[in-house]
Amino acid sequence: MIVLFTDFGTHDPYVGQVKARLAVDAPGVPTIDLLHEVPDFNPHAGAHLLAALAHGFPPGTVFLAVVDPGVGTPRGTVVMQADGRWYVGPDNGLLSVVAARAQDTRLWRIVWRPEALSATFHGRDLFAPVAAALARGDFPQDWLDAVDALGVEFGPGDLSRIVYIDHYGNAWTGVRGEPSVACVRAAGREFTQADCFAAVEKSHGLWFVNSVGLVELAVNRGSAAATYGLRVGDRVEVERMSGVSPRPAAARENH
Amino acid sequence: MIVLFTDFGTHDPYVGQVKARLAVDAPGVPTIDLLHEVPDFNPHAGAHLLAALAHGFPPGTVFLAVVDPGVGTPRGTVVMQADGRWYVGPDNGLLSVVAARAQDTRLWRIVWRPEALSATFHGRDLFAPVAAALARGDFPQDWLDAVDALGVEFGPGDLSRIVYIDHYGNAWTGVRGEPSVACVRAAGREFTQADCFAAVEKSHGLWFVNSVGLVELAVNRGSAAATYGLRVGDRVEVERMSGVSPRPAAARENH
Amino acid sequence: MIVLFTDFGTHDPYVGQVKARLAVDAPGVPTIDLLHEVPDFNPHAGAHLLAALAHGFPPGTVFLAVVDPGVGTPRGTVVMQADGRWYVGPDNGLLSVVAARAQDTRLWRIVWRPEALSATFHGRDLFAPVAAALARGDFPQDWLDAVDALGVEFGPGDLSRIVYIDHYGNAWTGVRGEPSVACVRAAGREFTQADCFAAVEKSHGLWFVNSVGLVELAVNRGSAAATYGLRVGDRVEVERMSGVSPRPAAARENH
Repeated sequence: MIVLFTDFGTHDPYVGQVKARLAVDAPGVPTIDLLHEVPDFNPHAGAHLLAALAHGFPPGTVFLAVVDPGVGTPRGTVVMQADGRWYVGPDNGLLSVVAARAQDTRLWRIVWRPEALSATFHGRDLFAPVAAALARGDFPQDWLDAVDALGVEFGPGDLSRIVYIDHYGNAWTGVRGEPSVACVRAAGREFTQADCFAAVEKSHGLWFVNSVGLVELAVNRGSAAATYGLRVGDRVEVERMSGVSPRPAAARENH
Repeated sequence: MIVLFTDFGTHDPYVGQVKARLAVDAPGVPTIDLLHEVPDFNPHAGAHLLAALAHGFPPGTVFLAVVDPGVGTPRGTVVMQADGRWYVGPDNGLLSVVAARAQDTRLWRIVWRPEALSATFHGRDLFAPVAAALARGDFPQDWLDAVDALGVEFGPGDLSRIVYIDHYGNAWTGVRGEPSVACVRAAGREFTQADCFAAVEKSHGLWFVNSVGLVELAVNRGSAAATYGLRVGDRVEVERMSGVSPRPAAARENH
Repeated sequence: MIVLFTDFGTHDPYVGQVKARLAVDAPGVPTIDLLHEVPDFNPHAGAHLLAALAHGFPPGTVFLAVVDPGVGTPRGTVVMQADGRWYVGPDNGLLSVVAARAQDTRLWRIVWRPEALSATFHGRDLFAPVAAALARGDFPQDWLDAVDALGVEFGPGDLSRIVYIDHYGNAWTGVRGEPSVACVRAAGREFTQADCFAAVEKSHGLWFVNSVGLVELAVNRGSAAATYGLRVGDRVEVERMSGVSPRPAAARENH
């Protein structure tokens, strides 16, 4: 299975070009659109989203992860194997939270360059053929050089910011729900904990641990983003229950 | 064939997680994204859209239908077989218009609960595995209890409201075009009947029976929603030709 | 491979209905969503986008190309084979730029009409079954009449207008980047040439030859559309290097 995780957007002719390449290079392999709306130009938010989402996928899954504002510059490009899953993308931090949290990580720099390489669309020209080879089970030895570390690393810690706002207006944070969170503040107010949307009154705010393990802010049958003016990048404050060790803070929280 | 009909949105990482589960549980079965923009939190509009859209699909199709603002509460979850097609979703009325109009309907309550069940994402954790089993042809007997009726029913009648606005700005109503409609009023004006967009002048309004049999309001090469300020939930008035029996009114029109 | 190129939008239940038909009529053939946001009602912009995008696809690809504001009127419907690829769509100019630039073009009028033909959704009812037959390798002889020319032709030349704005706010023009472009003006200002986004300062404008060969206007880590107020249809002025023959101007530039 190849899983696409990009900021290419769902409206534009970018994803289709990547999928056509994959259909030719890895025929019969299912391709899943996981997310094409990673906040634009924001590998930091993307890194935390990818780390949260990747857990649900089976071993052998190949993630084609592209949020790449530096495309065309000499930034590195990498293949990573982490806890049995494969990742292909730019070396700009996007894969680094997965790397830092994994039990077992192996890394390679992509040294291959295709004959036709657009300066602005490595997703189609460079990353897709590499992902296709991995998905077919053909490890492309000649295209790769083993390396010890990523060039850009955000570390294993949480990101105390909003990293995604969905179409309901729910705001995902980069903070994992475990160990137990006691109190969440954002936009100058404290949110109430609830297990599901309907546990609070209609139009009331809440926070909950979402389906991929992150603290999420919502409004029952409404939009938290619109109600509280929340935006990607906004800080959130999280207090954990006393006696529970907090996770280490993110090494680098600015983005 | 598995057909997805949800309010998960096309931008968010929800549909991809469902499709990854289906790819694992029902490999090789085509999965079709029919609609992920059912009006949010609105099973009533969704029920009428689903009833209109489902007709075009072949026998054996499995609809995974999720518009589920009550997820995580004790609302029921159901499997339905209606006129040879399967439906899996919450028991909140979403499947009830299909049920009430079908010649032949069988119903089961889903009693199975997966080991890992998110409080907010039953589409992925509960409904997708059930839909996958049906699509593989493995009726999951042990997961289901036969029941006689749905818990929430909207009845077989039409819904005299706007139930969907498409990206052109065309407004779908919940009113079927047969028996012959004579006159359609919405937003304080009467619309002209036409067979296709180009049958009226550019920027003029019209109504027509759309490609799934519903009365739809449009503007030739323009947006009916923007021109007339139409929104989902707005009432429409429909007069039928004298001598033609009207359909029964919807049992419950508020939403 | 069947490639969808339409103005059906990614949010609406149109694409899913087309794909369900294709899944039934051409089982096992990969279907790629290339673009469903061709500017609404604008076959002229669409014709230039299609010509630029089609190059990257392998021989035998079947393009289902539908931007069809005249659906339901007696406008023609065609099958085209151009340089080894197939195209199915309305005869309203949408296929004509591909036709005019191809080395080798063959054309047929679609004379077949399905039993159930919606007045407003020929994409599903007429074009999809024809595309499916071609993709299966069953040339539908009885459904087609060979013709010598399209009814509506835009010619082989470039279109000196903005033809698409992507979700980053980058503006695609209908002007090909070769032979060498020296200078690009739009919205009353001259743009700087650069090879990639990061070659200019953050928030600065640039133009570049994009991944499908068209001149594109962008802002590094920002939106060119928002920064300069660019819209589809806006004129752009392009000067080519002296000594390089310009391409012939488009036969018909208004739309």
